[in-house]
Amino acid sequence: MTRWPIPEPMERALALARAAAADGEVPIGAVVVRGGQVIAEGRNAPRATHDPTAHAEIAAIRAAAAALGAERLADCDLYVTLEPCAMCAGAIVHARIARLYYAAADAKGGAVEHGARVFDHPQCLHRPEVYGGIGEGEAAALLRGFFRDRR
Amino acid sequence: MTRWPIPEPMERALALARAAAADGEVPIGAVVVRGGQVIAEGRNAPRATHDPTAHAEIAAIRAAAAALGAERLADCDLYVTLEPCAMCAGAIVHARIARLYYAAADAKGGAVEHGARVFDHPQCLHRPEVYGGIGEGEAAALLRGFFRDRR
Repeated sequence: MTRWPIPEPMERALALARAAAADGEVPIGAVVVRGGQVIAEGRNAPRATHDPTAHAEIAAIRAAAAALGAERLADCDLYVTLEPCAMCAGAIVHARIARLYYAAADAKGGAVEHGARVFDHPQCLHRPEVYGGIGEGEAAALLRGFFRDRR
Repeated sequence: MTRWPIPEPMERALALARAAAADGEVPIGAVVVRGGQVIAEGRNAPRATHDPTAHAEIAAIRAAAAALGAERLADCDLYVTLEPCAMCAGAIVHARIARLYYAAADAKGGAVEHGARVFDHPQCLHRPEVYGGIGEGEAAALLRGFFRDRR
């Protein structure tokens, strides 16, 4: 059996996660894709930037909205290496992201299939299509390696 | 009976909400308080900034973290005119805000006492003390007036 290849945007998100780790940040990366092209990128950087909101998804969404000059990213998809937290899931709702692809699930901090399950409430204004698991081995190994090296 | 006065930080948050409305943004304001002093302010500005994450709380938290040069705001309180959404509640967790004071509840978009109830899950890393209702009449009137004028 040949394993299904990781889509290019998720490979780019994994590369951004590696770059975050090299800077001492928890390795998480994200990209926003529109019409098959990566239009914005983000990586986790709360330590370097002194910004508790500087998660990969927030950075990528802000950059995409700035690039498009629009508050909403309705025809855009987000690829991220880890299941989004409540903050990032909320931002995905506000940005009207069409499809969310994430690699590893996060039973502790995730808020899509765990915890707050932000998209699963009747009040949720927008629910993206959600696809999980592609690239999860690579994403989880990056996180494990990062925390092991810090012990 | 004399009504209990609105605390000064909430009065400031209400003033910021009014300023947002004057700029055509949904009127929500927030301030971060440390040691009795307002150290950062924010108001809703997603339309003007083309940034779906530009809620009052996010702006105030980012400004406070930048002012302190710290990723966490552990000895800080947040005052906001409306019950935070999932994104902002998540940011409050990441910032380790000690006390959250909000004016009006938000049955549609709120995620503290409604919907995702972000602080109420066992996975939640940090739960601030939460106080609701003070200034709610003023905050709700601002929102009602804003949406009435736009109909």
